[in-house]
Amino acid sequence: MLNIGIAGFGNVARGILAAVEKWPDVSVEMVWTRRPEQVEKELKEQSIFIPTQDSKNFSLPKGINIDVVILCGGSKKDIPVQGPKFAEHFNTVDSFDTHKKIPPYFAKMDAIAKENNNVSVISAGWDPGIFSFMRLLGSAFLPQSRIYTFWGKGISQGHSDAARKVKGVKDARQYTIPIEEAIQRVRNGETPKFSTREMHKRLVYVVPENGADEEKIREAIVTMPDYFAEYDTKVIFITEEQMKREHTGFPHGGFVLTTGTTGKGDKNRQIFEYGCTLTNNPEFTGGVLIACARAAYRLNEEGKSGAFTMLDIPLGLYSQYSDKDIQRRFFM
Amino acid sequence: MLNIGIAGFGNVARGILAAVEKWPDVSVEMVWTRRPEQVEKELKEQSIFIPTQDSKNFSLPKGINIDVVILCGGSKKDIPVQGPKFAEHFNTVDSFDTHKKIPPYFAKMDAIAKENNNVSVISAGWDPGIFSFMRLLGSAFLPQSRIYTFWGKGISQGHSDAARKVKGVKDARQYTIPIEEAIQRVRNGETPKFSTREMHKRLVYVVPENGADEEKIREAIVTMPDYFAEYDTKVIFITEEQMKREHTGFPHGGFVLTTGTTGKGDKNRQIFEYGCTLTNNPEFTGGVLIACARAAYRLNEEGKSGAFTMLDIPLGLYSQYSDKDIQRRFFM
Repeated sequence: MLNIGIAGFGNVARGILAAVEKWPDVSVEMVWTRRPEQVEKELKEQSIFIPTQDSKNFSLPKGINIDVVILCGGSKKDIPVQGPKFAEHFNTVDSFDTHKKIPPYFAKMDAIAKENNNVSVISAGWDPGIFSFMRLLGSAFLPQSRIYTFWGKGISQGHSDAARKVKGVKDARQYTIPIEEAIQRVRNGETPKFSTREMHKRLVYVVPENGADEEKIREAIVTMPDYFAEYDTKVIFITEEQMKREHTGFPHGGFVLTTGTTGKGDKNRQIFEYGCTLTNNPEFTGGVLIACARAAYRLNEEGKSGAFTMLDIPLGLYSQYSDKDIQRRFFM
Repeated sequence: MLNIGIAGFGNVARGILAAVEKWPDVSVEMVWTRRPEQVEKELKEQSIFIPTQDSKNFSLPKGINIDVVILCGGSKKDIPVQGPKFAEHFNTVDSFDTHKKIPPYFAKMDAIAKENNNVSVISAGWDPGIFSFMRLLGSAFLPQSRIYTFWGKGISQGHSDAARKVKGVKDARQYTIPIEEAIQRVRNGETPKFSTREMHKRLVYVVPENGADEEKIREAIVTMPDYFAEYDTKVIFITEEQMKREHTGFPHGGFVLTTGTTGKGDKNRQIFEYGCTLTNNPEFTGGVLIACARAAYRLNEEGKSGAFTMLDIPLGLYSQYSDKDIQRRFFM
């Protein structure tokens, strides 16, 4: 039985708890949170230890044993602080996803985890994570290939937050939508250089404040640099009731397409495509992080320490099955 | 520069040579073959050493250095004999694909490779190989998932050979075709139990001998046990010219679909799909085997020995890039 601790209680933590119920080999033993009373209320039917102290306290009560801590906080403020602290005391898994800061974060976690004989799997999930390794495989297996990543249709938290900050907006949710024609061109073997606008579009559902100027809101959103200006963005105004009824889910997904040619005169086109269609992104991510926790524990048991990305881990270590079972089951 | 030797010269060996031209980090230095004169003729413009002795002779001429030997023979007769012999002297990669015999073959290769401090990557390619790891990932990331593998549209050598043995058949090529409706049902989130007939159909192009009874040939093919009887099989008679013109390629491909549910009441359906569309199967397989050769060499350089499947290897080792580059490139 793999004993997991969770640091930070939000949607991904809830996703882990939902996933754990279906895995007989995994159990959540402890949750570190800044809101122990609320979390205790939410988890009242589950026997999970929730320390009332803040997350600086790493002493475990008698009878509780933690093999791996999964860090479920945000990449901006939580993980950069919590990662190094937890890596001193535990094997860790996190989904740090500020892409450009991954190399320095890796170096920092590697040093701390090594010093304390722990394993830290960083930047895990589906992107970065599964999508990273699909890009790597495409690049390693198909010479001089071109790799395209499309995201969606799905909710982007960052873009929803950005739209919510516009004056006159009471609530907003943003869907990232891949452009079907672009995907089809790549599937057909073309290797276009797409502009940002040609790969994705954005759809924002907005609940305006009473009496707000809808045209002004629309203009402020579609021209917002970094978030919307480079895309074709559509803004749809809805009521609070509609928002609650139709837009509270966490759908997401995407595709990694790799296309290359082989043979004389590059005449043989080879395409390889990975895609996922997720009805609930945090619950899927929870499953991936649990698989990474298995791997972190096994690597540590093998005597390894330091930081690992999902590209550094033999795939078999993610599995709920043993080596022998793996050969029998997956080489079918 | 990674120096590769090839044992056995057929379509996959030609695929490796086609792929190597596009990889600046890899070079083919030597080919062991039972037909040295013919192969020498075919490779006349490339400086590749071809020993005239048979493959029992493993001494290398001066100036030739081999890091990894890729075994390109068949799984039935060649690899089970050549694998253990080559593993005594070299790191090896093979695509042994007799699924049920993989565990004992692994055990044998593991013992020999360990004894000789070599690394042997066995059963590599796209299935077994890439498809095996997509099945494993589906199983590890999605709790209690169902996994479906569809193959095609593509040429099956084994089924083509079986059809060729029917009396009155001069030549035959068989296409395995996945049934689109079945794929769509899984993509839509259903989890049916398919019969063999519901997942794939078979299409056989036959050139009959002069005066042969076409109806008898058709009947003999579609009722052939193990190969065709369990499928809806269509036989189309064509001329030798048509066969040459339209059916000399090596297309193949397929899909691994994993579907599972998460959350309360299993209400959130999560689907994940990998697919490849290959215009030339042996050239793609060649690329995968080269990536495995990189991994075999690196594992051995790290001090490891024994047998490995693609599920035992950290993905980064397949890449033409170094660790630092990998983080920068694929965690984008």
